[in-house]
Amino acid sequence: MIIVYTGDGKGKTTAALGTILRAIGYNWKVCVIQFIKGSWTYGEMKGLKRLEPDVVLKVLGQGFVGIIDDKKPIEEHIAAAQGALKAALEDVQSDKYDLIILDEINVALNLGLIDLSEVKKLLTGKPKRLHLILTGRGAPQDIIDMADLVTEMKEIKHPYQKGILAQKGVDF
Amino acid sequence: MIIVYTGDGKGKTTAALGTILRAIGYNWKVCVIQFIKGSWTYGEMKGLKRLEPDVVLKVLGQGFVGIIDDKKPIEEHIAAAQGALKAALEDVQSDKYDLIILDEINVALNLGLIDLSEVKKLLTGKPKRLHLILTGRGAPQDIIDMADLVTEMKEIKHPYQKGILAQKGVDF
Repeated sequence: MIIVYTGDGKGKTTAALGTILRAIGYNWKVCVIQFIKGSWTYGEMKGLKRLEPDVVLKVLGQGFVGIIDDKKPIEEHIAAAQGALKAALEDVQSDKYDLIILDEINVALNLGLIDLSEVKKLLTGKPKRLHLILTGRGAPQDIIDMADLVTEMKEIKHPYQKGILAQKGVDF
Repeated sequence: MIIVYTGDGKGKTTAALGTILRAIGYNWKVCVIQFIKGSWTYGEMKGLKRLEPDVVLKVLGQGFVGIIDDKKPIEEHIAAAQGALKAALEDVQSDKYDLIILDEINVALNLGLIDLSEVKKLLTGKPKRLHLILTGRGAPQDIIDMADLVTEMKEIKHPYQKGILAQKGVDF
């Protein structure tokens, strides 16, 4: 299955995390590849580490381009995202995993850090048993067309609207 | 914070699971209370058990009323959901937990298995440090009004549309 979690609301990466917890219940091997740095919080990293070695975490991104704490030139972001894509292609082809999460890959696509055609090739060439989860807002229509399951996380209400800062463990 | 995951799309309970993984990364104590049986799969149960004793799982529901495998009279569903609510009230007041997940409580509310006024009392009376996550489609407006963060999981595409059956580890 190819699953896409997109939209502007909270819960995309969180739902991917939840799927990991479910997957290890079935003794699946899981790989998580981060396309944009900062999509995984300290708490998530530590929580995921408890699930090693069943879960392999590959943190390759280089910060939200043009959004948060962007001190790096665009070239470094491109190199990082393309490094993530290269790792993803290898891991998909390795047939070592039951579930691979391509975290924030939709954002990397939208920012033009990686090529849509490369990602389409990755999806087409995946082993049948392998499940892929693609997260990030603004999933391209081509990706939605290729997916089996697409959920849009829609923001109905956010604490920032009420002036509450991000809270440890829930918001960051 | 009071967080609500609602809507007709996949990812509500899954996002709640993901928040658990994040929470244990911060050494939080977590309690999960199931208001409707069947909302947690075998894989989820087994995955969650790996996180004991940090995560306490209370499975109290009695099946999707009128939807799936409904062999029990409505009275038993009411008793089960009210048992879950009673447990929730005690756990909230105990101040033992940092995060309590009231899984499928919105569904229990919609089916009239529990009283909205009781749930509102629970939300109002919670310790300040305690985070609550309420899941299930059709969250009542009163609950949305009281929440800090509300995400609607919107179904854009579902494998059933393509005739693919539920797949182990992802869909059940």
